[in-house]
Order: sequence, then C-alpha cells, then structure tokens
Amino acid sequence: MPHTAEADSDALSPGAKRGRPGYDQDSVLNVAVQVFNKHGYDATSMGLLAENLGISKSAIYHHVPSKGDLLRLALDQALVPLEAISEHERARTGTAEERLEFFLRSTIRVLIERQPYVTLLLRLRGNTEVERTALERRRAVDRKVADLVVEAQREGTLREDIDPRTTTRLLFGTINSMVEWYRPDGPADARQVEDNAIAMMLDGLHTRNL
Amino acid sequence: MPHTAEADSDALSPGAKRGRPGYDQDSVLNVAVQVFNKHGYDATSMGLLAENLGISKSAIYHHVPSKGDLLRLALDQALVPLEAISEHERARTGTAEERLEFFLRSTIRVLIERQPYVTLLLRLRGNTEVERTALERRRAVDRKVADLVVEAQREGTLREDIDPRTTTRLLFGTINSMVEWYRPDGPADARQVEDNAIAMMLDGLHTRNL
Repeated sequence: MPHTAEADSDALSPGAKRGRPGYDQDSVLNVAVQVFNKHGYDATSMGLLAENLGISKSAIYHHVPSKGDLLRLALDQALVPLEAISEHERARTGTAEERLEFFLRSTIRVLIERQPYVTLLLRLRGNTEVERTALERRRAVDRKVADLVVEAQREGTLREDIDPRTTTRLLFGTINSMVEWYRPDGPADARQVEDNAIAMMLDGLHTRNL
Repeated sequence: MPHTAEADSDALSPGAKRGRPGYDQDSVLNVAVQVFNKHGYDATSMGLLAENLGISKSAIYHHVPSKGDLLRLALDQALVPLEAISEHERARTGTAEERLEFFLRSTIRVLIERQPYVTLLLRLRGNTEVERTALERRRAVDRKVADLVVEAQREGTLREDIDPRTTTRLLFGTINSMVEWYRPDGPADARQVEDNAIAMMLDGLHTRNL
C-alpha cells in the first residue's frame, strides 16, 4: 500500500472527500505533523504552521484552539491505535508467546501505517504537559510488552538467559528504528518487513534454528 | 565499567593527567560532545560552548580552530574505532557468520564505550561538509555488515527467507537504539547487554531454538 500524505489523510478522515473546500482538521494535522517532525515541536510556531499550510493563523485557530491541541490530536493518531492493541481478542487469549508476537506485529503495523505520527511520539522531549501525558501513555503500552516478556519466560517459551528489561528495550529498539528507515516505496513491502523483523527477534537469523 | 565524563577523558587521552592546568583538547571535546547532543550541532555556538566550558571563546580557539574542527574531532572518536573493526584479524578470518558476530559485538562495544560520540554521529543531519564526510564513512562501515549478511546467506549459515537490506537495517536499529537507553549504572552491565542483543538477533528469543 503506498503511504502518501493523501492516503494518510483519507485513512484518518473518512469525510475528507465530501467536497468541502480547503482544509479539514485531519488535513491540518497531516501537514502539522510533518512540520513538527522537520523543525521539532518547540521550534514550530503557529506562524510557521500557517506558512506551510498556506493559510492564515486565524484560519488555523478555526480548526484547533492552540499548538498544544494540535500536538495532542497528532499524538492521538499514534497512541489510540497503539493502546487499542491490548484490547484486541488476540492480545487476551493464547500463550504469552502468542500474545507477545501479536503485540509486536500489531505495533509494527501501527508504526508503518501511522509513521509520521509515531515519529513525532518517539521524538518527544517532554517539555510540556501534553508531551508528558503522551510519554506516560507510551510507557504504559511499553510496560504491557515488558510484562509479556516476563510471562513468556515463566511459561517457558522465551529463553531464561536474557534480562527481560534489556530484551524489552531491544525489541522496541528494533521496531522503533523503522520510523527512521522504512520507506513505503522501498524494496521490501510492509508485510515483508514485519515478517523479517519477527523472524529475527523471535527465531534469530541463524539457519541452525530453523 | 562505570562510564563517566572523567573515565571517557582518561580513556581517550593518555596524557590528560600529566598535570597540565586547565583543559586539554580531549576534555574540551568531552564537554563539546555533550553540548552538541543536548542542543544539536547547528544550534550550538562557540559562545554556548565557552559558557559550558567555563572558559573564554579565545581559549577554545587555542584548542581548535573552529566549531567544524571540534565536530570532526568528536566524530573521529566514534568513527576511528568503528572503522578499526574491519582491520581486526577476527574480521578477516573464519566463516561469514563468525565475522558477522564479531562485527556486531565489536560495534556494540564501541557504542557503549564511546556512547556520547556515537550518539552525535547517529544524530547528524548532514548540513555541512564535515557532517557529510562523516555520514559517508558511517555508510561505508554499514556496507561491510550488509556484505557479511549476504555472504553468510550464501554460505548457508544465515536464513535465506530474509531480505539482506531489511535485516542489515534491523541489526543496526537494534544496536543503535542502545545509545538512547543504555545506562552504565543500569541493571544490566555492558557484557550482559551485548550477550543479550546477540542472543536475540542471531538465535532468537524462543526457547525452541536453544
């Protein structure tokens, strides 16, 4: 699936094509997240956003009351689907090993589908209340994976000679790095990248394990 | 091994303790890399560096002719040991699988020993010639690992159902993430983190592979 600004906007805003002229809130978000990622949230002024949107500052305020609200809405585009993973049936049934694999695969999918929004989330510095709340929500998601690693070690499906905290960080390190290098028009498609990452993390690269 | 600013300085500058008063070049580098990492290279002025060093701007120029030279010297602290890996005997002998493991382990060690300098390298934006030259040297190191992945697939020790380019990026994603979370005073020491990362990447987390 090609991942363009337009595709994003459609995915996030089912009503975007109803013929309303100008921007809707999701299209504003779409441009805002790119400006935030390019310049950093702190360095982005409402004036710079208006310039990139090609509209006036007062027109932005028609969509959102403040820069902080824009950030909060943009971060929700990453956090809501990440938080939804643990609500899924497959995150609640089966062995810890199966649930861990479901979590990792689902996280990779959200990351690829919402790449600019997850990039924004991962680069947060925590300077404002909106940022700190988002980071706390992200940590809560991370803790679910950390708990699954421990649970899978206890049930005997994950090796015991690894430190669960280090392993959780390595898992997120591997997955989160994708926001920096995954390209929808690259040589490997989203499903191949997902399968490749799962193959490495859970089964290892050595043929002797196959 | 505790990794403090002082330990760094000693490691990088054997002559640092000969009793010369004030800063030597390595101590200047040590502070400079922290300021670069905190504020970003572009946003760091010689004035800000002088402020952090507690010396005058002209005193900095006694050590290095320009901010660009300071960056180049700091990046060398990461790049020289990374480039040295491929010169080692163990990078040249044995199976591709053995050489790949040696490369990965050595890279993790450099990253942990030179953490602030590797952080600086990984965050480069490529806005200046010094940055672009460093990024080209980093890519040359990355290509050696990519070549080893292909070679190990050909010799049959690395699984064939993986894309070598994706795998190389996942390997570096896993390793490079350490600069963001590894803490020398954390629960796992450097050797445990290295073994844990190698265990996950090459053998996988599943017990069924053991």
